[in-house]
Amino acid sequence: MTAAEIIRKKRDGEANTPEEIDFLVQGAVAGRVPDYQISAWLMAAFVRGLDGDETRALTRSFVESGVVMDYPGLDLPLVDKHSTGGVGDKTSLVVAPLAAACGCAVPMISGRGLGHTGGTLDKLESIPGLRTDLPLDDFRDAVARHGLALIGATDRLAPGDKHFYALRDVTATVESIPLIVASILSKKAAEGISALVLDVKAGAGAFMPDVAAARQLANELVSTGHLLGMKTVALITGMSQPLGNRVGNALEVEEALEVLRGEGPSDTRRLCIELAAWMVHCARPDHDLDAACRLAVEKLDAGGALEKFERLVEAQGGDPRIVDDPGRLVRARHRFEYTSPAAGRLVRARADQLGRAALLLGAGRRTAADTVNHAVGLTLHKKVGDEVAYREPLVTVHYDDEARLGEARPLLGRAFQVEEGEAARPALIHEVIEQ
Amino acid sequence: MTAAEIIRKKRDGEANTPEEIDFLVQGAVAGRVPDYQISAWLMAAFVRGLDGDETRALTRSFVESGVVMDYPGLDLPLVDKHSTGGVGDKTSLVVAPLAAACGCAVPMISGRGLGHTGGTLDKLESIPGLRTDLPLDDFRDAVARHGLALIGATDRLAPGDKHFYALRDVTATVESIPLIVASILSKKAAEGISALVLDVKAGAGAFMPDVAAARQLANELVSTGHLLGMKTVALITGMSQPLGNRVGNALEVEEALEVLRGEGPSDTRRLCIELAAWMVHCARPDHDLDAACRLAVEKLDAGGALEKFERLVEAQGGDPRIVDDPGRLVRARHRFEYTSPAAGRLVRARADQLGRAALLLGAGRRTAADTVNHAVGLTLHKKVGDEVAYREPLVTVHYDDEARLGEARPLLGRAFQVEEGEAARPALIHEVIEQ
Repeated sequence: MTAAEIIRKKRDGEANTPEEIDFLVQGAVAGRVPDYQISAWLMAAFVRGLDGDETRALTRSFVESGVVMDYPGLDLPLVDKHSTGGVGDKTSLVVAPLAAACGCAVPMISGRGLGHTGGTLDKLESIPGLRTDLPLDDFRDAVARHGLALIGATDRLAPGDKHFYALRDVTATVESIPLIVASILSKKAAEGISALVLDVKAGAGAFMPDVAAARQLANELVSTGHLLGMKTVALITGMSQPLGNRVGNALEVEEALEVLRGEGPSDTRRLCIELAAWMVHCARPDHDLDAACRLAVEKLDAGGALEKFERLVEAQGGDPRIVDDPGRLVRARHRFEYTSPAAGRLVRARADQLGRAALLLGAGRRTAADTVNHAVGLTLHKKVGDEVAYREPLVTVHYDDEARLGEARPLLGRAFQVEEGEAARPALIHEVIEQ
Repeated sequence: MTAAEIIRKKRDGEANTPEEIDFLVQGAVAGRVPDYQISAWLMAAFVRGLDGDETRALTRSFVESGVVMDYPGLDLPLVDKHSTGGVGDKTSLVVAPLAAACGCAVPMISGRGLGHTGGTLDKLESIPGLRTDLPLDDFRDAVARHGLALIGATDRLAPGDKHFYALRDVTATVESIPLIVASILSKKAAEGISALVLDVKAGAGAFMPDVAAARQLANELVSTGHLLGMKTVALITGMSQPLGNRVGNALEVEEALEVLRGEGPSDTRRLCIELAAWMVHCARPDHDLDAACRLAVEKLDAGGALEKFERLVEAQGGDPRIVDDPGRLVRARHRFEYTSPAAGRLVRARADQLGRAALLLGAGRRTAADTVNHAVGLTLHKKVGDEVAYREPLVTVHYDDEARLGEARPLLGRAFQVEEGEAARPALIHEVIEQ
């Protein structure tokens, strides 16, 4: 078996065997197969595609390239949630403690902001002192003690995926469904979970522009997840406008705390309840979905989820006082109100433009070397379908730097559209994909 | 401009601009663009193709990545010939001195054996003492003094091609017409020639399996060659059976010397005259093809070409006594006669099998680290279309090692086919492609 012959088969549209794929993955991690061969294979796989068997083999090879977490003595069902990325998507901050409050263990390994979409680690790190780089032993202990922990990727879990992903990022081979599926699922399978709920976003602010494309990705994720031994469900949810009212790291923590107190914007609250209910239902099949839903509402409204969140903050070195006093979170120095140039209804609030505006303000990274400003971001005052008066505020921009405001401001004009007449409220949840 | 964006365009089937292609080539040579990006681009280019403008831009960037030879004070027209590779193809050894004898200067930069096809450098190096690694200054001097020199590739000419080719070789991106065209023509354009004759082989022993495929490559070579300022002509010639009677390095030098003395197998002689005539015609437009042909025959039969060959051997440190006494060339220790299992006509003598047999005997390299045995090879006694008696010798195998003979022998059985009835003699020259 040679790497060149494995590449040639994929180049010509033939299927690679699991052994061939494993040869590439373990070879890359061990330094036996050079990056230039991996990137040629990635481009061939991007153009020719991978079938279900190949996708499963790639995922499994990524998992087996590192350690798989286990939790000796823990008798809670292990479950996680993963989102394909959106704008204002702070659901992980709510559903991890909520599912934990409902009797699950949630060993969540998450990512940082990518392009115009935010990242859970960046949001969490806006809590003073909180660390997301716990060693795996501490991570395991936190899951065992509190039923949840939330850290970033490590070199020990699915290093093959990390290696391949770094190459995809610089060789224009990111946007491939099988490669995305293998990347997402290998990291989740390495957590040692038995159930996984996927939030596949569709719309202008999402990786998948429409429901049809999102459905294709969701189907692949669900079928490959099952083949890897995880009970997997995918919700296809709307990302044409941002989720909730706040975009930006500390601002989203504030909104998450509202939801954890039983308050918060109705769309964020509803999506969190739905995702947590599916997590509980998948992890604890004795709970049907309605029962799981009722349990989630109860844990949210009675404070159980908020308490779990406080445990997580404490366990990871954060200042737990922010839970009762969100005013302790970092704030931007300046505010700017962007008002509506017309009266009517808000027909569009484009998530991609608003996410990009937040990125330009400093909430995300333009290059991997950038540091994030946790304070800056947006507070939206209107959702699509709402009535808007002439010069009524549409969004408050929280900023630290006039030049960055100047860069972000033109995007606001492109993001919003106010028109006379009716405007349909976009669907929050399009459909659920189960196997 | 980023490498990732250039790769993305090619991945999606868009055309790259000359500036983008140059960014990759000069970036690769300077170490700014890493190999894993080049190989991803190569795979995208392999699958999506390159149009004429892109192929020309790639060729030009390869040329400009190094020096272009010049020959101050030389007032001979500069011309070269290049073959896409065949079995028993010793024409370079004849046509370089022949075209030089006809008043051209031939600065030939050639290659080594590749797979089952032989390489001019290996053949020439079977002459005791002869060096093909002259510094470029000595190469220039030899061309100026004798009208010809024949060396191997150097890092100074078209280093971009060398860089890209090394990656293609290990990433299954060799068999792409535009990439082949850029690789061939950049090395030739860097020689500083004004005219180029291409021998594009078609058939079982060639890179192109049939005339239609060879025509496609020939058309691309001719049109791109012209765009680069070289008068370019391609002959599509037969490579279903080996050229001439001998296969193997010293054996082919012997056959080349026969042709240079006005003797030798008729197919080798005829192809050499035709190629040399086209070289003279392209380089010296005052000579029409018939006149060029007559001149070539005269220089071959009157010893002018042989004398030029002797000058080349001397100038490059070889023993010139082999010219009059080919018995000084290295000989294999043993001979084995493979005889016909039937009576009839030879209907097939497959060049690929015979080339592979010679490779297994040691005439070529199985891996780049192998050393070549200049002595071993084959002497064919029959050409396709010839009558053959039962047990009449078809080929004499020249070998040094019984084990290697054992490896090569089964291929002889597969190479030859003798049948009752008529057998057409395959065409030597299929067609000529001019612009």
